[in-house]
Amino acid sequence: MNKMDYIIGIDGGGTKTVGMLTTAIGKELVRTQAGPSNYHVVGTEQTKKVLNEIIRKLTENVDNTTLDSIRFCLGMAGLGREEDRNIIGQMCDEIGIGKKRILTHDAHIALVGGIGKQTGVIVISGTGSIVYGIDQYGQDARAGGWGYLLGDEGSGYDIGIKGLQAVARSADKREPPTELTRFMLNRLELNNPSDLIRWTHAANRDEIAELSKVVFDAVETGDKKAETILDQSLIKIT
Amino acid sequence: MNKMDYIIGIDGGGTKTVGMLTTAIGKELVRTQAGPSNYHVVGTEQTKKVLNEIIRKLTENVDNTTLDSIRFCLGMAGLGREEDRNIIGQMCDEIGIGKKRILTHDAHIALVGGIGKQTGVIVISGTGSIVYGIDQYGQDARAGGWGYLLGDEGSGYDIGIKGLQAVARSADKREPPTELTRFMLNRLELNNPSDLIRWTHAANRDEIAELSKVVFDAVETGDKKAETILDQSLIKIT
Repeated sequence: MNKMDYIIGIDGGGTKTVGMLTTAIGKELVRTQAGPSNYHVVGTEQTKKVLNEIIRKLTENVDNTTLDSIRFCLGMAGLGREEDRNIIGQMCDEIGIGKKRILTHDAHIALVGGIGKQTGVIVISGTGSIVYGIDQYGQDARAGGWGYLLGDEGSGYDIGIKGLQAVARSADKREPPTELTRFMLNRLELNNPSDLIRWTHAANRDEIAELSKVVFDAVETGDKKAETILDQSLIKIT
Repeated sequence: MNKMDYIIGIDGGGTKTVGMLTTAIGKELVRTQAGPSNYHVVGTEQTKKVLNEIIRKLTENVDNTTLDSIRFCLGMAGLGREEDRNIIGQMCDEIGIGKKRILTHDAHIALVGGIGKQTGVIVISGTGSIVYGIDQYGQDARAGGWGYLLGDEGSGYDIGIKGLQAVARSADKREPPTELTRFMLNRLELNNPSDLIRWTHAANRDEIAELSKVVFDAVETGDKKAETILDQSLIKIT
């Protein structure tokens, strides 16, 4: 195999980073995974460490190839602006990631990877949320992708936290009883709504996003509050 | 002075802990301050350390007095339930805080300290928020006090974060322009709304709560968005 024949794609998110080594025609050779690499959240040092780890794992069985000869595409959370591209670009130079590289954000690679075309619109509701699109002139636009404190409306995190807040308001008798109380406490093996305070303080974003499933479960029972939460999430994200 | 003549009052919150040593008739002798002591947030070890520090500072110039002889009132965030009182009670035993102690929560001492009576209703909107009241039969009730992820509607934190979210939606063109954009960026010395992502990730609760002042400032210019945020906060908290 010619040493120019490798491609490495990296999908770096706020939860985990996935890397893949393929041949020039896209045949998967190695796939690996490491920790989060949104440098706004974990910092540049940690991001660099994660990228190094991914690339080392992908290339350890590849002979006679320099990083410089591999084509790279890095699609990373927090890589949305020129300034971000400069920072990650410098990081790539330090690591030795070659000149043949595309630096873009995770919503862009999700769009192209998801629909197999360079134009279209993608609505992502994972732990976070973003809507991203590119038209036939290459113009792109986005809404959301602000992170869980500033936005992420309609995301798993948003649905999970709204479910928890509904339990709190119901416990205060500021809203009618909801099946969410029973479902949330069962899922988390807690006795009282007030136990949620301690649980939530200790929980990470993914654990809260996981609770979105509880809201979906409560909808199955016809619970009005859970229905309202999902309806509002749908309106916000579309 | 008789060794029974001292009272120590401690107001322990999620931001700081204030302690005061007074005479039996309430004359202030020493006042001191230390870090946060909501054990749900900082953990029992840290809470114990803060209480120890406060008590040491308050009593270092008091001779011939054992902690056991001082009357204590601890009003602490996260001390709302029987289980919490047991945990803090055990902590007090270990520290040597005497048997003559009242363990209650920070909203209770704010009510009694604020209105000088044992009955009434208090609405607190600081970094967090809670409404708490006691009637003439000693029955108490509360709404809120769930912490910034589950509730705290109408708090400084809530107003600050809603202001930031409004800037994000406006930048996405999902809502009309708002003066909040200019005010927030000026205050934080940032150039673009997207810079808020990094700022918010690094900010603590108090720094976000401080931004509630920016929302008040924007109202002064007649900004409709800022007005709506404050109106909704008022409705939620009353």
